[in-house]
Amino acid sequence: MARAVEEKRSQLVVGLDPRLDLMPVELRGDAHLGPASAALSYERFCCAVIDAIAPHAVAVKPQLAFFEALGSHGIHALEEVVDYAQGAELLVIVDGKRGDIGSTARAYAAAYLEDRGPLPPLADALTVNPYLGGDAVEPFVTACRRQGTGIFCLVKTSNPGSADLQDLALSDGRPLWQHVGELVDHWGETVVGEQGLSSVGAVIGATHPHAIADARRVLPRAILLMPGVGAQGAEPADLRPAFALGPASVLVPVARSVIYAFRSDDDDDWRSAIGQAAARLRASIWTASGW
Amino acid sequence: MARAVEEKRSQLVVGLDPRLDLMPVELRGDAHLGPASAALSYERFCCAVIDAIAPHAVAVKPQLAFFEALGSHGIHALEEVVDYAQGAELLVIVDGKRGDIGSTARAYAAAYLEDRGPLPPLADALTVNPYLGGDAVEPFVTACRRQGTGIFCLVKTSNPGSADLQDLALSDGRPLWQHVGELVDHWGETVVGEQGLSSVGAVIGATHPHAIADARRVLPRAILLMPGVGAQGAEPADLRPAFALGPASVLVPVARSVIYAFRSDDDDDWRSAIGQAAARLRASIWTASGW
Repeated sequence: MARAVEEKRSQLVVGLDPRLDLMPVELRGDAHLGPASAALSYERFCCAVIDAIAPHAVAVKPQLAFFEALGSHGIHALEEVVDYAQGAELLVIVDGKRGDIGSTARAYAAAYLEDRGPLPPLADALTVNPYLGGDAVEPFVTACRRQGTGIFCLVKTSNPGSADLQDLALSDGRPLWQHVGELVDHWGETVVGEQGLSSVGAVIGATHPHAIADARRVLPRAILLMPGVGAQGAEPADLRPAFALGPASVLVPVARSVIYAFRSDDDDDWRSAIGQAAARLRASIWTASGW
Repeated sequence: MARAVEEKRSQLVVGLDPRLDLMPVELRGDAHLGPASAALSYERFCCAVIDAIAPHAVAVKPQLAFFEALGSHGIHALEEVVDYAQGAELLVIVDGKRGDIGSTARAYAAAYLEDRGPLPPLADALTVNPYLGGDAVEPFVTACRRQGTGIFCLVKTSNPGSADLQDLALSDGRPLWQHVGELVDHWGETVVGEQGLSSVGAVIGATHPHAIADARRVLPRAILLMPGVGAQGAEPADLRPAFALGPASVLVPVARSVIYAFRSDDDDDWRSAIGQAAARLRASIWTASGW
């Protein structure tokens, strides 16, 4: 991951959130006929996005929910899209926010972070929800150790409602999310790589600028996946304190502002609008990183 | 849900956790050849389980992770299994522990809790992880209101590691899970049905007997989904305080002790061992309910 960031001079992760109502009309085809046709539209759109952003992004982040909503057809499209992204030398962060216990967590790890028979893992990294605790996260960490894959645990998410649980004051006065951050740091201490970065990263919303320095302090070896730039209103410059561990210590996922850039752009060519949005964001994030 | 419990005199929910290494050898077939064959074995096994338990259980609970681990083939098998369960007049609780924000949460709700074109919703209810807060749960509640489906929010899970986050003491001295329970009660107050039970239920591990009365107090209109009976060591009698709102106010998911009952049983017929285990559990849970 760190090598890819440095070679491409990019921390941009393009979110793949396919939506029929937003994608170019020419790709919608027969999507109204049912999930099999809609899945084909998703696949065409995501592969075109990959072509447009591959020079500028270090990874793509398919959002599982959109593919799951088309059932087995959607998951088949996801598999094709991931294969295409890997062919374009992009890392793949599967956004599923999975989490469960025991043999179930092991099944999720097998689904995303481990070899699938002769095929490589579906994901280079998976987002994970920590609410069930350390024994639920351990099977994912074991998979990371064995396969060289990674996870990003939710710590402080970008949405306003994140305050409901994550900002609750604990008996020592700290917000819950800081304690979760410490747990995540602890869970990842056995899978730290050459550059001092752990395979266990954390999700910290870029929409909470006052929390970013605190997040970096409690997570001194985590790659931070920081959503919220673009449609949710955060600016790349807000992220600067998070980059303390080097250019690869932050990844910035952006979906709508890139993949639907053509909807608020005069550019007639939707592919070039997507590519240009990715190029602009890559440059501004790299500059913010200060490296 | 309440009507089905009363008609069948059963609160038993049979967990569908298909695992090749545990299922009857005769069903494994060519499963070693790859995910398409393995998915066929899953489908055959789960449908046989459904035949065996249908007279005794009120619902089945397919565990998404096991199906996801076989990719699109696994999700296709899940769709077939759900269709078969619906045909056997069983309710379907999809165990996915999903949770995300905005349009992503809406996509998860569409995937599981809403009509799929001409087909009914895949699930009668879905398990949901509350860590992202109220705005992440709201799209699920909206789907429940529109479709008459339900969710079960994780509150206090059955695993030992649940203590890591869920038992953290807040500044007022209460454990986090009790505060989450209050939030869940609040999220569900607009979708309360005739019997005083909300479409927003809660997951409370049966493995924490001292917490059960507290859980019922903070969740005075929730159906409690209470895992932990069987392989995890809890007894049906432990659940008694949770039944305060009537026979349908608790559902008891059991997976291994039912679907793999034949592995610790002298019965040569694995189907009958599964059916007998379900019958015994149904009876002991119904007795514990005191109704």
